[in-house]
Amino acid sequence: MELQFIEWLRHRLPAHPRLLLGPGDDAALLDMAGSRGCLVTVDLVCDGVDFDLTKIDAARAGRKALAVNLSDIAAMAGRPLAAVVALLLPRRGALELAKKLYEGMLPLAEKYCVAIAGGDVNTWDNPLAVSITVLGEPGPRGPLKRSGARPGDRILVTGELGGSILAKHLDFEPRVNEALLLHEKYALHAGIDISDGLALDLSRICAESGCGAVVETAKVPISDDARRLAGQLNDGSTPLDHALSDGEDFELLLAVPPDDASRLVRDQPLPVRFTDIGQFVAERGLWQIDEPGQRKPLEPRGYLHRQQ
Amino acid sequence: MELQFIEWLRHRLPAHPRLLLGPGDDAALLDMAGSRGCLVTVDLVCDGVDFDLTKIDAARAGRKALAVNLSDIAAMAGRPLAAVVALLLPRRGALELAKKLYEGMLPLAEKYCVAIAGGDVNTWDNPLAVSITVLGEPGPRGPLKRSGARPGDRILVTGELGGSILAKHLDFEPRVNEALLLHEKYALHAGIDISDGLALDLSRICAESGCGAVVETAKVPISDDARRLAGQLNDGSTPLDHALSDGEDFELLLAVPPDDASRLVRDQPLPVRFTDIGQFVAERGLWQIDEPGQRKPLEPRGYLHRQQ
Repeated sequence: MELQFIEWLRHRLPAHPRLLLGPGDDAALLDMAGSRGCLVTVDLVCDGVDFDLTKIDAARAGRKALAVNLSDIAAMAGRPLAAVVALLLPRRGALELAKKLYEGMLPLAEKYCVAIAGGDVNTWDNPLAVSITVLGEPGPRGPLKRSGARPGDRILVTGELGGSILAKHLDFEPRVNEALLLHEKYALHAGIDISDGLALDLSRICAESGCGAVVETAKVPISDDARRLAGQLNDGSTPLDHALSDGEDFELLLAVPPDDASRLVRDQPLPVRFTDIGQFVAERGLWQIDEPGQRKPLEPRGYLHRQQ
Repeated sequence: MELQFIEWLRHRLPAHPRLLLGPGDDAALLDMAGSRGCLVTVDLVCDGVDFDLTKIDAARAGRKALAVNLSDIAAMAGRPLAAVVALLLPRRGALELAKKLYEGMLPLAEKYCVAIAGGDVNTWDNPLAVSITVLGEPGPRGPLKRSGARPGDRILVTGELGGSILAKHLDFEPRVNEALLLHEKYALHAGIDISDGLALDLSRICAESGCGAVVETAKVPISDDARRLAGQLNDGSTPLDHALSDGEDFELLLAVPPDDASRLVRDQPLPVRFTDIGQFVAERGLWQIDEPGQRKPLEPRGYLHRQQ
């Protein structure tokens, strides 16, 4: 199956100006001339955990496998350049599944000018796993890190949060272009993509930056899906709970100095909405304010804590 | 499990001069200043296919997962710089297994000055899979490709071939240093690492170079393990059959112009032995010569063809 697939793939992959050597050798060669270093990130997704192939088309799984990596590059305000793709396919129907995964991946790769530089194909008697590594380059202002938040910085998020399990976790748009533009036009101190939940990912910025954060819950942009999910589950969870801890929103969570934060929220320079949901503080810890003057601890719950 | 593991790992990983940002952000940042492009390769290995965790210590599986990637960089005569590691672990005992895999990987990474730049950890209810991506840089003469073999070039191999399943497929030494030195001191036209079998990998150089090859079978360096395996199997296969098609030798297979080939075989500049086993020819196809003057087709059998 491997030879057949590689033959198919080599005809399917477009050329790319940065790809000096593509599939057909033991390694690909990427032109990094002029780059300020090479960003690299890997994410593995698998059937039964990150998606369910009995319920969705494999193309959406392929798209997600690439998109989660692009979101990591976006979190660093970087420009993605190339991806390598390792597939571990159930033996039965492996070739068709591999093609479908790529059919989901390729339009997204093309949209963000990402070269599929190479890959590995394997079969076994267990469910599908897809591991993608994306290489990129930082923008002119260098990489946006988790460690730069300072007390007084505002907490900004893109889009709306919660309930991603209903669809968005498969079909989200990685905020690559948004992050590149923002990092160029506004002072950003720190950033992360919301993959494991707003509260948990916020706690990560705090941990790396050595500070704390206070979220004004009334300001958190709650998605329609978060409301729908809370209604469906009927387990006492509120839409806000889902917005705070569902994860897989893949929106940007940013630390922005107050002046730039006001300007950004006022300008709304992009189709996606920016919302100021609170501020970073010197004292370590996470808090939420539901009503003025009433601060209480916010638990960094999220995808990880629920699952493991 | 993930948080605990990442905490452990961050303390276990040494600093690396090329790693500008390591684990702790959404992507790592690698210094590529002065590099002639970025080599990138990915290989995924899994339990039950590439190794059997009921029979071997997980540290050897971890070592293999990294070593197969280093061998790909060696095949390009490149210098490995960094690796990102995606683990998909069976839920039960995940933390201990992850640590053992790294304990096998880290000494090899250190030996070849490879930074573990980042990774991803996942758990599920199926067997272990490990996907590693290695980044590297070409040497001063640029990457060694599969496509440069010319009629008249000699076919050279390092080491001895066949029977790797008895142990070498886990414990082999990736020929990184050998390839770097050879590519600097001798004219090499093309190269590949023998991962799927001498005959099959030779056919790949031929396909990319648009030529054929003739192997003088009496000259093929047959390993003791190939002899042992032929004896054990008692299935009519000869030690030569194993040397030609077992795969996972991870030795170098090179196309070298005649003068440099003679010099290399005469010099034997490295601890590992170089053997001249035949030559590339203009006519497309693979042949073997068992006795002088008697040329017969050589089937490009190998690991792939047997398994799928």
